[in-house]
Amino acid sequence: MSTQPVLINGQWQPAQVGSEFSVINPLTGEPLPDQYPQSTWEDVDAALEAASAAAKVLRSLPGSQIADFLEAYAKQIEAQAETICRQAHLETGLPFETRLMGGEMPRTINQLRQAAQSARSESWRMATIEGSANIRSCYEALGPVLVMGPNNFPLAFGAISGGDFAAAIAAGNPVIGKAHELHPGTHRLFAEAALTALEETDLPTATVQLLYSLPKEDGLRLVADPRLGATGYTGSRQAGEKLKAAADAAGKPIYLEMSSINPVVILPGALEEQLEEIADAFTTSCLMAAGQFCTNPGLVFLLKGTQSDAFVNAITTRFQDAPVGTLFSAAGCEHLQKQLDLLQTAGAELLTGGKPKSERQFENSLLKVSGQTFLANAEALQAEAFGNASLIVEAESPIELVNLLSTLEGNLTGCFYSHSQGEDDTLYDQLAPVLRSKVGRLLNDQMPTGVAVSAAMQHGGPYPSTGHPGFTAVGFPSTMLRFAQLACYDQVRQHRLPPVLQDKNPTGETWRRINGSWSQRDVS
Amino acid sequence: MSTQPVLINGQWQPAQVGSEFSVINPLTGEPLPDQYPQSTWEDVDAALEAASAAAKVLRSLPGSQIADFLEAYAKQIEAQAETICRQAHLETGLPFETRLMGGEMPRTINQLRQAAQSARSESWRMATIEGSANIRSCYEALGPVLVMGPNNFPLAFGAISGGDFAAAIAAGNPVIGKAHELHPGTHRLFAEAALTALEETDLPTATVQLLYSLPKEDGLRLVADPRLGATGYTGSRQAGEKLKAAADAAGKPIYLEMSSINPVVILPGALEEQLEEIADAFTTSCLMAAGQFCTNPGLVFLLKGTQSDAFVNAITTRFQDAPVGTLFSAAGCEHLQKQLDLLQTAGAELLTGGKPKSERQFENSLLKVSGQTFLANAEALQAEAFGNASLIVEAESPIELVNLLSTLEGNLTGCFYSHSQGEDDTLYDQLAPVLRSKVGRLLNDQMPTGVAVSAAMQHGGPYPSTGHPGFTAVGFPSTMLRFAQLACYDQVRQHRLPPVLQDKNPTGETWRRINGSWSQRDVS
Repeated sequence: MSTQPVLINGQWQPAQVGSEFSVINPLTGEPLPDQYPQSTWEDVDAALEAASAAAKVLRSLPGSQIADFLEAYAKQIEAQAETICRQAHLETGLPFETRLMGGEMPRTINQLRQAAQSARSESWRMATIEGSANIRSCYEALGPVLVMGPNNFPLAFGAISGGDFAAAIAAGNPVIGKAHELHPGTHRLFAEAALTALEETDLPTATVQLLYSLPKEDGLRLVADPRLGATGYTGSRQAGEKLKAAADAAGKPIYLEMSSINPVVILPGALEEQLEEIADAFTTSCLMAAGQFCTNPGLVFLLKGTQSDAFVNAITTRFQDAPVGTLFSAAGCEHLQKQLDLLQTAGAELLTGGKPKSERQFENSLLKVSGQTFLANAEALQAEAFGNASLIVEAESPIELVNLLSTLEGNLTGCFYSHSQGEDDTLYDQLAPVLRSKVGRLLNDQMPTGVAVSAAMQHGGPYPSTGHPGFTAVGFPSTMLRFAQLACYDQVRQHRLPPVLQDKNPTGETWRRINGSWSQRDVS
Repeated sequence: MSTQPVLINGQWQPAQVGSEFSVINPLTGEPLPDQYPQSTWEDVDAALEAASAAAKVLRSLPGSQIADFLEAYAKQIEAQAETICRQAHLETGLPFETRLMGGEMPRTINQLRQAAQSARSESWRMATIEGSANIRSCYEALGPVLVMGPNNFPLAFGAISGGDFAAAIAAGNPVIGKAHELHPGTHRLFAEAALTALEETDLPTATVQLLYSLPKEDGLRLVADPRLGATGYTGSRQAGEKLKAAADAAGKPIYLEMSSINPVVILPGALEEQLEEIADAFTTSCLMAAGQFCTNPGLVFLLKGTQSDAFVNAITTRFQDAPVGTLFSAAGCEHLQKQLDLLQTAGAELLTGGKPKSERQFENSLLKVSGQTFLANAEALQAEAFGNASLIVEAESPIELVNLLSTLEGNLTGCFYSHSQGEDDTLYDQLAPVLRSKVGRLLNDQMPTGVAVSAAMQHGGPYPSTGHPGFTAVGFPSTMLRFAQLACYDQVRQHRLPPVLQDKNPTGETWRRINGSWSQRDVS
């Protein structure tokens, strides 16, 4: 049983090991056989040097060559999908067929292909040409990007397979991936596929590098390193805030998807029309994968009325009857216990659940609190309880509901369920502007869990859900702008301009803003 | 002689005064008659409350109504241009006719009109519509924006007249302006014009508010206030870093234009062709308005050769012969002395100048350093000397030149002068990629001082020139994106969508990205 090597500069090499770790299979509680290294700064430094060199090469390549790599990589992954999903299943306990092979894997592959398409078209660069003044600008690669993926999506948000990765690469940046410690083996398989694809498409092999783990202090040093372009991080708010402080102090962009409790507002008319359907949708959304989604509906607002008690009873029964999912780790179980205790200390009443069922299982849990109590203790009652739990807030009046929404912190999503024939519209019109400014994505009549990979997606939102409300972690091409700088060329000679800014449209299909109009034509 | 009132919530009212200040006329050294208040937190709090209420109203207005205000304001300013420029001249010493009436004032008015046009067209929102999935997104107003303007542009970058102001308002945000303490009277006149225009166009009067000065701790508290949307700051790096740390810690966007020494690389072929012309252009660019420009060329790179000594001699003579401009304040003069001393301590040799001529005048100053010394002490030799001074770096070889450019911090601009017939092209190709990634705007054969208000402008750049390399402080519509959040509507009913996302094009002319293609049509 030897320690797995890290991937630096195209070579699988023994890590400069600080310590080692292995993974526990959440379904069996047994440790998996492989050992993974926690690297020291020497590995990080080597990866940064190699990435800097790769960045220079990538910057000069046409988008089509980067697209070729992304497509070759998608194909490699497709060919090895079963092996990868098998490994991810062992490491995360997520259902092999329904979740991994049937859902997350196709999403991951599709996402890489969408990234390829964006890289190829070059439209993401938002080339802007002011002909008479001969001033031209576009977005360009930023430099090596560190991606730190989360525990809950081993594939679609993985450090060298997921959305941040695809966006950073498509924008022409090499990626240093820091695997999540709960699924290093999945990352290793991706890295092997990536290396093959890099070689096939003649890209610098340091375009994709992989480390498994870093001491905290090296992580903080890395996000601030002058050689780094930016960081993409998905994970806990606690770790995110530390990384953000380190990166901010060095003036390095960092994009964080940190925490979100995703308020769902269910208006009276909606309950009158479809109480049972909403109870079903809510239960599914909240308990799927043991609720370990960043878009999990963790907060439900109801207006006290004839149907609100019935709805609370309906979801309580469903939570009691539903199977209990397995959490990724024992730590996740402890976190959930701690957060639910905090919510109760802050005044919430437990309706069902509230205790662990086993080391990595926690009872499906529902809590309830009055609007008045929430208003009195709004910060504490917005603590994220990551997992299969949710808090119901019952407002006494429409104006209390307005006040409740006003206290919310930034979230990724916010939902309204309302009467289909407009009976709730007056209330909606009062509430929606308040919730709108607090969330990245506003939904109607739908739970927030699904995040479509769409050009119009905003998987982001005001702090503390992310670090900046103007960027999205999902959706091409917008998501690529996180890993780009705005580069202006003032009176630069035509042959020295990047192809996307030359008079001739570089692909014949690239959208450019020429003298104020978007078009696919040449500059005349 | 009474203290001037502040403008809060549409009312000119006495400030909650912490202390008072007046302005010294830089040309005469005499204090100007008016007294201005440094507000306490009570004023800030009142302004934030009023701005929050105004933000809610502005958010719901069509861009055309905001455009009406910007145009009415531009007209008010135009009518009072002479009075405003007279006041700015008294406070800054900038030439009344050539600089203020003839240059900065028309730029300011034009900028407000460009902002109006962007607000009216709504194209800045980058509406993105994915029809089949019914997911739609656009940029929306962020909330009250604090603008803190610099000392060097009383009009075009003024807190309630300049680029940040125009961008924030055009994106639908109220502005709390913090005047620069060196030209409060100019701000007062702008505020009067703004209030008239707000009333004319029926906008909330709290859309534009004005405070003159704040204690440092209140400034730090303000940029982090939950009620604030974002901050636009132009000024010194020292103050900017403190504001950035405070805003970052609270997760509040802050856009800073802090410091830049704007490297100019003059290649041998260019000197052979037009040594005298470049010497003229450099001298004008560096000494204009006593060099108090954020795009002042503070660093010149030469390759040692037959013409480099001649060029250094040519500019030295010109610096000695040129008239000496007046700095905005005695503090500016002291700063310049201190920074030039630091450069000399770090190994630079003084060619001419180096001492004050009077309390607010400093000799035109040139310094020189070898490439080797610069490499050994690169950080210290990049200290910004804001004013009529520049440092020449002489490289021994092309490879040393590459290394020199590699050590540069982020800058707003970078220039290359090169042979018109391509004799420098090999060298250019080696150097340009290095400089490109360090600067926001790359120029050919032109000094960096002029910043066109163009859609393709990037007046920004990597840290520490600004806080984020993806945003520009000049150029509509891009500059507005700083003060916006990305807002997604997922399955939201048609009549509840903002007009820009409804099927019908709201203006008939708004550019929107519909199913991947930019167009001005309706969604069919």
